[in-house]
Amino acid sequence: MPKIVDHDARRREIVAAVWALIARKGLDAVTMRDLAAEAGYANGALAPYFRGKDDILLAAFQYAVESTDARAERAIGDATGLVALRRLCHEIMPLDETRLLEARVVVAFWGRALHDRRMAAVHVTAVDRWRQRMAGCLAEARAAGEIRGAAPDERSADALLATLAGFQVNALLVPHTATPDHQRATLDGLLASF
Amino acid sequence: MPKIVDHDARRREIVAAVWALIARKGLDAVTMRDLAAEAGYANGALAPYFRGKDDILLAAFQYAVESTDARAERAIGDATGLVALRRLCHEIMPLDETRLLEARVVVAFWGRALHDRRMAAVHVTAVDRWRQRMAGCLAEARAAGEIRGAAPDERSADALLATLAGFQVNALLVPHTATPDHQRATLDGLLASF
Repeated sequence: MPKIVDHDARRREIVAAVWALIARKGLDAVTMRDLAAEAGYANGALAPYFRGKDDILLAAFQYAVESTDARAERAIGDATGLVALRRLCHEIMPLDETRLLEARVVVAFWGRALHDRRMAAVHVTAVDRWRQRMAGCLAEARAAGEIRGAAPDERSADALLATLAGFQVNALLVPHTATPDHQRATLDGLLASF
Repeated sequence: MPKIVDHDARRREIVAAVWALIARKGLDAVTMRDLAAEAGYANGALAPYFRGKDDILLAAFQYAVESTDARAERAIGDATGLVALRRLCHEIMPLDETRLLEARVVVAFWGRALHDRRMAAVHVTAVDRWRQRMAGCLAEARAAGEIRGAAPDERSADALLATLAGFQVNALLVPHTATPDHQRATLDGLLASF
């Protein structure tokens, strides 16, 4: 009987193993051989799972999004409205080492997604899911009287998305402009402006 | 007598010529030969000016920053305070084709700057100059009574920097979340919140 291999599970295992290497050194600086070694595979053994380094970066991006979503669901729990929205945003914001490593993968991914339709589509899906979640929290906040501004909730969600994307790049490249304290205070100021 | 060549001027000419090609296709998709042909040089003739494609991306990033700064100075003219600040931000925001092409170069540059100290240093210099200019406008606005909030101007400048960086990536990768109207309205909401 042929051995049944769950390729998706195997792909996720490999990405989990090579994750920190990709985030720390950048995909340009590592070879498929380095990535295989880090995951405990022989050279060439990643070929059935990933066609090349861009495939690994794509999987790493998806891993970052899934990790963020899982943390956000735990952090949000039963909360609604602005409390839930703030918790979701905090999990996307690069406030600690884990989230800074995620931001490294995300920013590297953006550069490739500019010229790769498949990567761009994966990015749109992730952002649209966050956008919907944010709009849902904003609707709850409005129903509860937590926000009363005239700006449409959709525009508020887009303002949040821009700010969070900006924090991801600025915390890495101009960290003095995006300290954790500044990030939190800026988010609170933005939420208060809604 | 040896011919005197102004290498900096020559480098700028070459970048101006290959600019749109880099922005449109991405540096990964073009060869040094393509770039030389676009600039009207023979294959290999770029070598005295650029050691490789990363050098060209660095020069393209500097070209984008200089173009933005030159437009901003013209747009600002004698204006001060919030009017000047809004005009500066509008020149950084990807509101038209020119600024979208600039954003393409900038986002590609971020991905490389994550793992290249020389590129990262050039980025910090550019952002710090904008940050100082913003802080100056905010101080003028405060002196004129245009802003009265308790948030330190430095934090407000950092919030603007994050939002603008976010627009640069979102207008390219999730454009429905960063239309020109949404960008302008978000900026105005942020300025009003100061």
